[in-house]
Amino acid sequence: MRVGMIGLGKMGLNLTKNMLRNGIEVVGFDLAKDNVVAAQEAGATPADSLEDLVSKLGTPRIAWVMLPAGKPTDSTIETLAKILDKDDIVVDGGNSFYKDSLRHNEVTSATGVKFFDCGTSGGQNGALNGGNFMIGGDDAEAFDKYLKDIFEKIAEPDGFLYTGAAGSGHYLKMVHNGIEYGMMEAIGEGFDVLENSDYNYDNEAVAKLWNHGSVVRSWLMELAEDAFAKDPKLDELLGRMHSSGEGQWTLQESLDMAVPTPVIALSLMMRYESMRDADNNFTGKVVAALRNGFGGHAVDTK
Amino acid sequence: MRVGMIGLGKMGLNLTKNMLRNGIEVVGFDLAKDNVVAAQEAGATPADSLEDLVSKLGTPRIAWVMLPAGKPTDSTIETLAKILDKDDIVVDGGNSFYKDSLRHNEVTSATGVKFFDCGTSGGQNGALNGGNFMIGGDDAEAFDKYLKDIFEKIAEPDGFLYTGAAGSGHYLKMVHNGIEYGMMEAIGEGFDVLENSDYNYDNEAVAKLWNHGSVVRSWLMELAEDAFAKDPKLDELLGRMHSSGEGQWTLQESLDMAVPTPVIALSLMMRYESMRDADNNFTGKVVAALRNGFGGHAVDTK
Repeated sequence: MRVGMIGLGKMGLNLTKNMLRNGIEVVGFDLAKDNVVAAQEAGATPADSLEDLVSKLGTPRIAWVMLPAGKPTDSTIETLAKILDKDDIVVDGGNSFYKDSLRHNEVTSATGVKFFDCGTSGGQNGALNGGNFMIGGDDAEAFDKYLKDIFEKIAEPDGFLYTGAAGSGHYLKMVHNGIEYGMMEAIGEGFDVLENSDYNYDNEAVAKLWNHGSVVRSWLMELAEDAFAKDPKLDELLGRMHSSGEGQWTLQESLDMAVPTPVIALSLMMRYESMRDADNNFTGKVVAALRNGFGGHAVDTK
Repeated sequence: MRVGMIGLGKMGLNLTKNMLRNGIEVVGFDLAKDNVVAAQEAGATPADSLEDLVSKLGTPRIAWVMLPAGKPTDSTIETLAKILDKDDIVVDGGNSFYKDSLRHNEVTSATGVKFFDCGTSGGQNGALNGGNFMIGGDDAEAFDKYLKDIFEKIAEPDGFLYTGAAGSGHYLKMVHNGIEYGMMEAIGEGFDVLENSDYNYDNEAVAKLWNHGSVVRSWLMELAEDAFAKDPKLDELLGRMHSSGEGQWTLQESLDMAVPTPVIALSLMMRYESMRDADNNFTGKVVAALRNGFGGHAVDTK
């Protein structure tokens, strides 16, 4: 088995190491030379271009794209569609929006290249030691013949699922992340209540307790336990919650279908809200101005 | 060690069996005779009144209340405060609101009885095989001397925590359940999106996949997997989400402190909403009437 890994950042490099440890040969390419060197040091064969990578793969070629969603993934898959041959395989293991994956499927299908959209969960540690994969793609037979063995080696036991038609893998990953947004916000809100209460809770002890037999035991609560162990009040952190697309896409999808998802929606809005401060909170300025207008309530000014 | 278990319903009976299996003697009382018989068959000593139960306990007496929150718990603790002696112990293992527990602490303290509020998580299976307990109470020494050994036997390993002052156990359980509301709603919404999508997902396979290495792996997702295994589309169920108080209390508490908890709040509102149908959705009637009023939009009538 040989895989061409395109993108050797945190996730791509860890997947590379995972594959190498499990007897899968990897040819690695990244625009950043340092990343290629790191992969080479881990045992991968280096490539200095997409063409070079393609020339070093077997038959059918398996090109695994682990790049940021959007332009980097788009342009790479478009190039691969041109330089790969019929029946070669492209796996997009990044976090592409499923509608982009449908487009990538069309682009590759036009030249007979088989496309698989693969949602990857489990974080960096999962990528290294056993990830969680949701894989869509129109050719179930090719999946069984060429990809299944690979996922059996690099996934957590029972940690991969072929989900059917093209786009279904990234769609499922999108919804997974939507759920994740809601679960994380709920956990955050709960600890916020505890932190503001009159009682003095040991956050680490609470998270640890909840991970041993409670209804809310979960990997996210384990991560909370780890975080509180390092920094009991998270004093070192700012409360900005970045987001990278999947929550927004889940909400867009629920809007398109008129499926009510208020908790996922609010989780996303709270992330947006968290990126603001009073200086650039325009909602806040408007509401403060209106309160001042009708009731003479004080406003805070610069 | 001997414990007087008051309330031998699903949770009380399972806790009784858990205690008996771990070498703790149990005297059991319940207003329902059948429940007392079931406890007796499990090996407990039956009691036919609170007074009878108290007469059969050691020194200090440990009376464990596992009753519905509100009046049943209130009146039982008030009686216990009268018939127990100084330094005897009352544990309220039910889901009392923490402000009620503060009141119970005052009532019992007046006669020198020591009160502990114990939030119990982990469901019926946890109660039977190893539960999760959050215990507040002003007398840390009495906890260490008389209760710690009991919790070590009946809890999941690392599954209990003494949380300090009276009320802190039930407060923590309240917040635990608030988080639980949010996590459950997020999971529900995610599967709702999947169910309405153009893809055909096997819900059980998805939940199972997500429990093996994904970020959202959790006991709740395991329960989802079990539910989908039994009924793939949950055809047998109505979508009514009952609630029993803790989510509401968490929201009340967050309102009192002005801590933003939109996801817990919306999770609660969605439960209320789910209990309605179109016939008794007054919000719906008002909005329909207004849409009709300004735009002539059609309304659905009886």
